[in-house]
Amino acid sequence: MTTGKINVSVENIFPLIKKFLYSDHEIFLRELISNGTDATLKLKHLTNIGEAKVEYGNPIIEVKIDKDGKKLHLIDQGIGMTSDEVEKYINQLAFSGAEEFLEKYKDTAKDSGIIGHFGLGFYSAFMVASKVEIITKSYKDEPAAHWICDGSPEFSLEPADKTTRGTEIILHIAEDSLEFLEESKIKELLNKYNKFMPIPIKFGTNIETLPKPEDAPEDYVAETVETDNFINNPNPAWTKQPTDLNDEDYKAFYHELYPMQFEEPLFHIHLNVDYPFNLTGILYFPKLSGDLQIQKDKIQLYQNQVYVTDNVEGIVPEFLMMLRGVVDSPDIPLNVSRSGLQADGAVKKISNYITRKVADKLKSLFTENRADFEAKWNDIKIVLEYGMLSEDKFYEKAGAFVLYPTVDNKYFTLEELKENLKEKQTNKDGKLVVLYAGNKEAQHSYIETAQEKGYEVLLLDSPIISHLIQKIEGDNSDITFVRVDSDHIDNLIKKDETTISKLSDEEQTGLKTVLETIVPKQTYTVQLEAMDSQAAPFIITQPEFMRRMKEMSQTGGGGMFGMGNMPEMYNLVVNTNSPLASTILNTTDKPSQEHLVKQALDLAKLSQNLLKGEALTAFVKRSFEMIK
Amino acid sequence: MTTGKINVSVENIFPLIKKFLYSDHEIFLRELISNGTDATLKLKHLTNIGEAKVEYGNPIIEVKIDKDGKKLHLIDQGIGMTSDEVEKYINQLAFSGAEEFLEKYKDTAKDSGIIGHFGLGFYSAFMVASKVEIITKSYKDEPAAHWICDGSPEFSLEPADKTTRGTEIILHIAEDSLEFLEESKIKELLNKYNKFMPIPIKFGTNIETLPKPEDAPEDYVAETVETDNFINNPNPAWTKQPTDLNDEDYKAFYHELYPMQFEEPLFHIHLNVDYPFNLTGILYFPKLSGDLQIQKDKIQLYQNQVYVTDNVEGIVPEFLMMLRGVVDSPDIPLNVSRSGLQADGAVKKISNYITRKVADKLKSLFTENRADFEAKWNDIKIVLEYGMLSEDKFYEKAGAFVLYPTVDNKYFTLEELKENLKEKQTNKDGKLVVLYAGNKEAQHSYIETAQEKGYEVLLLDSPIISHLIQKIEGDNSDITFVRVDSDHIDNLIKKDETTISKLSDEEQTGLKTVLETIVPKQTYTVQLEAMDSQAAPFIITQPEFMRRMKEMSQTGGGGMFGMGNMPEMYNLVVNTNSPLASTILNTTDKPSQEHLVKQALDLAKLSQNLLKGEALTAFVKRSFEMIK
Repeated sequence: MTTGKINVSVENIFPLIKKFLYSDHEIFLRELISNGTDATLKLKHLTNIGEAKVEYGNPIIEVKIDKDGKKLHLIDQGIGMTSDEVEKYINQLAFSGAEEFLEKYKDTAKDSGIIGHFGLGFYSAFMVASKVEIITKSYKDEPAAHWICDGSPEFSLEPADKTTRGTEIILHIAEDSLEFLEESKIKELLNKYNKFMPIPIKFGTNIETLPKPEDAPEDYVAETVETDNFINNPNPAWTKQPTDLNDEDYKAFYHELYPMQFEEPLFHIHLNVDYPFNLTGILYFPKLSGDLQIQKDKIQLYQNQVYVTDNVEGIVPEFLMMLRGVVDSPDIPLNVSRSGLQADGAVKKISNYITRKVADKLKSLFTENRADFEAKWNDIKIVLEYGMLSEDKFYEKAGAFVLYPTVDNKYFTLEELKENLKEKQTNKDGKLVVLYAGNKEAQHSYIETAQEKGYEVLLLDSPIISHLIQKIEGDNSDITFVRVDSDHIDNLIKKDETTISKLSDEEQTGLKTVLETIVPKQTYTVQLEAMDSQAAPFIITQPEFMRRMKEMSQTGGGGMFGMGNMPEMYNLVVNTNSPLASTILNTTDKPSQEHLVKQALDLAKLSQNLLKGEALTAFVKRSFEMIK
Repeated sequence: MTTGKINVSVENIFPLIKKFLYSDHEIFLRELISNGTDATLKLKHLTNIGEAKVEYGNPIIEVKIDKDGKKLHLIDQGIGMTSDEVEKYINQLAFSGAEEFLEKYKDTAKDSGIIGHFGLGFYSAFMVASKVEIITKSYKDEPAAHWICDGSPEFSLEPADKTTRGTEIILHIAEDSLEFLEESKIKELLNKYNKFMPIPIKFGTNIETLPKPEDAPEDYVAETVETDNFINNPNPAWTKQPTDLNDEDYKAFYHELYPMQFEEPLFHIHLNVDYPFNLTGILYFPKLSGDLQIQKDKIQLYQNQVYVTDNVEGIVPEFLMMLRGVVDSPDIPLNVSRSGLQADGAVKKISNYITRKVADKLKSLFTENRADFEAKWNDIKIVLEYGMLSEDKFYEKAGAFVLYPTVDNKYFTLEELKENLKEKQTNKDGKLVVLYAGNKEAQHSYIETAQEKGYEVLLLDSPIISHLIQKIEGDNSDITFVRVDSDHIDNLIKKDETTISKLSDEEQTGLKTVLETIVPKQTYTVQLEAMDSQAAPFIITQPEFMRRMKEMSQTGGGGMFGMGNMPEMYNLVVNTNSPLASTILNTTDKPSQEHLVKQALDLAKLSQNLLKGEALTAFVKRSFEMIK
């Protein structure tokens, strides 16, 4: 038996790393600037604890394009490397300097914000460069070093005459990557990945006009001066304490994040937790509209102020994906599949924390300024309703702030709803009947009828509302929801009153027979009711249960299987006490009787938005005839 | 100056490979079975060219779960490895055996279908196993070898007593990966990744009942027998020649791909090209419905019969993403970003090839069986119309098969449309006016009016139709599209005829003044027209240009900036020759006159679906009064 050590062949793995380390070549810039940031933060830490006896100063990172020389320079003023350290950190692939540093200084360095993880980041330079140089001078009193590698595993290392502290990386950009010599491209990448990194990044210059001196002569020509242009904000709002920020600061940061977004966010939630995981961030509720899908993927994920991705699936709960803002956490595993993320205990905790914080914030917004919260309700309801359906933890807290608006723009919590409606809207079996409409315009006549009785009508118009109603009824056995057009008003909330029919039983049977021969029975079931004589003579209704199951089946995840495709079925409620009922009964001429019933049916269909196409055209023509 | 070689530290890179090689741990099974397949295909190749003097036979790959021992076995009957080859291929990380093999046998091995690329695949075993064993016997007359590694870079290698040719991999499944000992999990993965791999894969057994013998006694008890269960189809339809398949074969393969899909596909397109790239596949047009977004990501991408992904973005043209089926090509770079894919010349060629093949197939379907093509039009139009807008190459070919249906279900090509309509629908300026409706029901009265004139009305109801019309008009200066409700019919197709107004100029001015005081002018512009006295007295129209720009702006990518939010504006066309116009003019009682105009306006609004909410409720009430 032989034993041995698996051998990693450099010649074979090197091209692999270059090709597959990252699928996006542009990542190289983020990686190199992260390295520069780490080098600077390490120096800061060592000066803080007194181990480095040098002036920390105000170090920056500079990015310079040399278009003629086809070179990109990245210069930091950080800790630098000695020749030995270059040997160790650069020539030994996959030996992570950051990890070793954190290990060595673990007691003091925990909050230093150092980014690097595996030490492979530097090699991403070879994704875009045919040759890479490092010129570096350590903060220690040792000569500078100059390392050169042309992308093969061969390198050269010699002393250099650099006298200032820090590291300069020179990328000789490869022919297939010349785009990275374009100022606009580099600017775009710095903006995408480095906008909030903690060390100032200088790129290019600004030309500023000097103020005109007071004693300027008449032929004064304005003087200009070049100033450094810094592209990042090293202290973004989410890294600060909530107590140090006011509403304007949060709004300003929103526009910093989304410069093309002109609308103000509705409100913000500042995330800030140390234990059991580290997470900061700010989430914003935007004004939502139309297609919810395209409004996803606006939350940006950072790790120690370095942009990682705008896909936060699995980290932010599904129902909050429409929010905007920033989440920054070094504790989120990055190269893990979605299902892996969802199984990860730490990530699950993060997701739960975000849910709780959002619920708490909503509660405090509701409590502190209810009028404002009500005004915003329409813009946030879909998120909250979806949250109630998908997250039990959120559902439990939602009672405190979720609102049920009426068609007259009154807003009730569920408890208030029960309290306010119980007197008038409790039926003879002691159950509270909540009336609602799905559309104020389309169900206008039904709403009006309910309001004439003194009932409140809610306006519940979210696409998922039937699922939510079903859930609420399940948890509140004393309450039932019915849409205003699901029966005639006296049946919706049954009281111990009966209206006496003006028609005898015989007349009723006669009327029913007449109606059933004229009205198409595959769609309408005739239902005679003794109602107020002033109420509408014909009303078309659609029973709540069937309609709700159908809707649930259509929007997915509920209802009854196959019901989404069932034909629509309606009841034709005929008011036997209306003058029209008597007129129909007393019209002996068959064609006239039929004409009367059809015109009345057409009018009832109009109120329920069912008169369309050819039937509508014929109705309009007939009606023009009647008025000409 | 010193020079040297960059050193890859095994201790550091090994965990990295284990963790980051693939984001999905389940990939290990695909990788190991690919290795087994390669080993078998290599043997096949060597026996074919006479270099291996052994019987190829009918080799299979077997997957076995040992739940008690917490082990997963993968056994192939392929080429096997000698002890030296284990040293070379397994112990030298990133030394790809497949690549070396292809290099060595490049003249003969081109079509052998060998999969492996980098030789890292084997190490994916460590993503789920704490210890891995290889027991392997080469086809050469050498002793078998037994290799063991516990996930550290240390291994042991000793002779083994295996006598049958091939390789057995034994994975000692790690505690955090015990799910991979579940039969259902392994079955799921084999089904996902290996369903169409070229070597039969055995997993588990079937219990089959033997046929009852003819001379069976009365108390015969059925005998059963265990048979091997093979999970894959080694010869899927796309690997065959189109000439060897009939319609039923294609349908059967569709259901093999999508077992949960009960509906038949509309038609298929067999892709098959060798040069300048290698690509096979079958695409199906499914019946589309509802939300197009959720119907994406159904096309599966394979490489040499190994499943890779169902995200074909960049490879299949955007407008064909709603199709289903399989694309198999070894020439598609896998670990490249989307933008990289789109820039890749080879991928661009693949995408163009697919577009061309789809266009050719559509043309031949149209030519061969037009009636059938017309019957399917409604289900495919959205894809084709989107293709015309997004791919110029497709637009050029589309004239040959894209159809324009009428509201009466006649179907014209653009050329036929011009030919058939030119006689009746050419206006006085010599331009062909194509009338269309967006909704047969909603625009019924307008359609009826146009048909009474003998005009054809197209039914163009796709959400992107306004963009397409705009494009077609741009390329055909002799043709203009107008929606039937964009003006009254005599203005839509202006002829050299004039209808004389029954009202004098003075009366017209009087009528207009009356109307303008009653009709809300922020929404309606009154337009008096002398029309046939039998035509509708009031018609509401909406000019084509404004409406189309608005629609284009709302569906994105066209129209005029900001127009999507402009208020709706209409014309109220009043027929001065209608009896109603005279009645209004002659009604001197102001309230009666106003009532008349309002009722007529309401009726016109009904025809244009504009009477809603409170106004509709009032109209219905008023109308019930009129008939009671």
